[in-house]
Amino acid sequence: MRDFSDDHRWLSINTATVRQQRGEDWPLLQILDACAARGIRAISPWRDQVQAAGLAAVSRAVKAHGLELSGYCRGGMFTYSDAAGRQAARDDNLRALDEACELNAACLVLVVGGLPGALGGKPAHKDIADARRQVADGIAELLDDARQRNMKLAIEPLHPMYAADRACINTIEQALDVCDAVDPVQSGAIGVAVDVYHVWWDPKLRSQIERAGGKRLHAFHVCDWLLPTTDLLNDRGMMGDGVIDIAQIRGWVEAQGFAGYSEVEIFSTGNWWQRDGGEVLDTCIERHRRCV
Amino acid sequence: MRDFSDDHRWLSINTATVRQQRGEDWPLLQILDACAARGIRAISPWRDQVQAAGLAAVSRAVKAHGLELSGYCRGGMFTYSDAAGRQAARDDNLRALDEACELNAACLVLVVGGLPGALGGKPAHKDIADARRQVADGIAELLDDARQRNMKLAIEPLHPMYAADRACINTIEQALDVCDAVDPVQSGAIGVAVDVYHVWWDPKLRSQIERAGGKRLHAFHVCDWLLPTTDLLNDRGMMGDGVIDIAQIRGWVEAQGFAGYSEVEIFSTGNWWQRDGGEVLDTCIERHRRCV
Repeated sequence: MRDFSDDHRWLSINTATVRQQRGEDWPLLQILDACAARGIRAISPWRDQVQAAGLAAVSRAVKAHGLELSGYCRGGMFTYSDAAGRQAARDDNLRALDEACELNAACLVLVVGGLPGALGGKPAHKDIADARRQVADGIAELLDDARQRNMKLAIEPLHPMYAADRACINTIEQALDVCDAVDPVQSGAIGVAVDVYHVWWDPKLRSQIERAGGKRLHAFHVCDWLLPTTDLLNDRGMMGDGVIDIAQIRGWVEAQGFAGYSEVEIFSTGNWWQRDGGEVLDTCIERHRRCV
Repeated sequence: MRDFSDDHRWLSINTATVRQQRGEDWPLLQILDACAARGIRAISPWRDQVQAAGLAAVSRAVKAHGLELSGYCRGGMFTYSDAAGRQAARDDNLRALDEACELNAACLVLVVGGLPGALGGKPAHKDIADARRQVADGIAELLDDARQRNMKLAIEPLHPMYAADRACINTIEQALDVCDAVDPVQSGAIGVAVDVYHVWWDPKLRSQIERAGGKRLHAFHVCDWLLPTTDLLNDRGMMGDGVIDIAQIRGWVEAQGFAGYSEVEIFSTGNWWQRDGGEVLDTCIERHRRCV
């Protein structure tokens, strides 16, 4: 297991972590400058932030700073309630793939979607099995496009508390079942993004990380589970402030050969989004060394 | 599958559903009166409510009304950080067993506990595997006592969002693994309580209900998952107001031979606990007929 205690070479910042500080959007290009100034070598930007800054400008800044993308957030949202919805999801995922390629991302992260319409508060139905079938079909279709572009796909299982509205793939086991189905030879063209926040509770976590193997572990995301957690979405903790044994999970992932970045992804309305962005980045560096 | 549409013979009220209406505790004996007056034949009381009313008085009222207990809430909380904590948990569980026997409950429901100290906000450590070992040991020990009293134990897997502080058994699969270990012949002395709120998201839900089988399905709890859910603990929905296909899950449970009560258990600070208790019970009856 790599020793992170004396440098932060393997720290990546998911840019949602500093997307809005004290009520103001922090523009992506400024985030990249602030990361580069601190010797942070990798980021994982969100598409809306890229769009706001302009893809070409972001691509230039990434190259100018020599930054890597530990992933691109995000494709997915495969579920639909009509043919137009299906086509819109497909078109959007193809754009996401092209953007990921332009930015030379390590993978396109897939948050697969929940019940169609649920994220907007109006689920079209309650048939989660049907949503899961749509997801599996959508992933199978997208994998062909991803292979053509040589871009890896990473299914990110989300915590079961997001099953209804954000992602109906909720465990690594379930994600790997989909991977096995669409890529039976386990080529690594599709794998998983392991976010400790979503999977730390899983009694099968270690065995499923081992099942994934190094070829299918495409991303490793960190933050922490706070006690109490006051909001289902935006109360994630800084590493070390919660109950997740992050180092143990990283050990399991690295034992499979994973040698990529530890990507910090924290949504925190009440705490970290209320601070100066530079302070948040400095804290990420310190906690990466001490708690990851 | 039983037809619930024209009566509510198989409705049970978990008394936490109406424990505090508009900021005032509704005394348990009054709850029992209100249930009996509506032809509700079963309840599942919480221990603190029983203690407040007095066990003997509750026992008399249960008999006088001819009420059944679909379960008794609750034993468990097996995890500890020192020998005194272990002994305290054991003593408390023996008391819970005796109370369940006095009230002739169908089973003692076990909410197994999370990281020791976490419910009070101070987890003793982050080793959830260790907590799970303590739980398995505690259950094995308690099962002997339960057998002597002829009282069934029902492990209630809680939603993974409670893994840290309330229960580190989070899926039916995991609960059944414990059942298999402590009762290899699957006698039914220990089984599971299936609460749709905790398990509806699980891709293995149907297969694990089938694995449990009728002899190990000891309780069936209903409420609903709201969109959005604004609080991790106390924002459960009334059946029909959320996204859970309750009837489908009940069908799976009954296909295994389960013929007991559908127990309504709703914690709702912002909505149902703000209403008149009688109105809540009337709504439970109506929704039981239409949405369960």
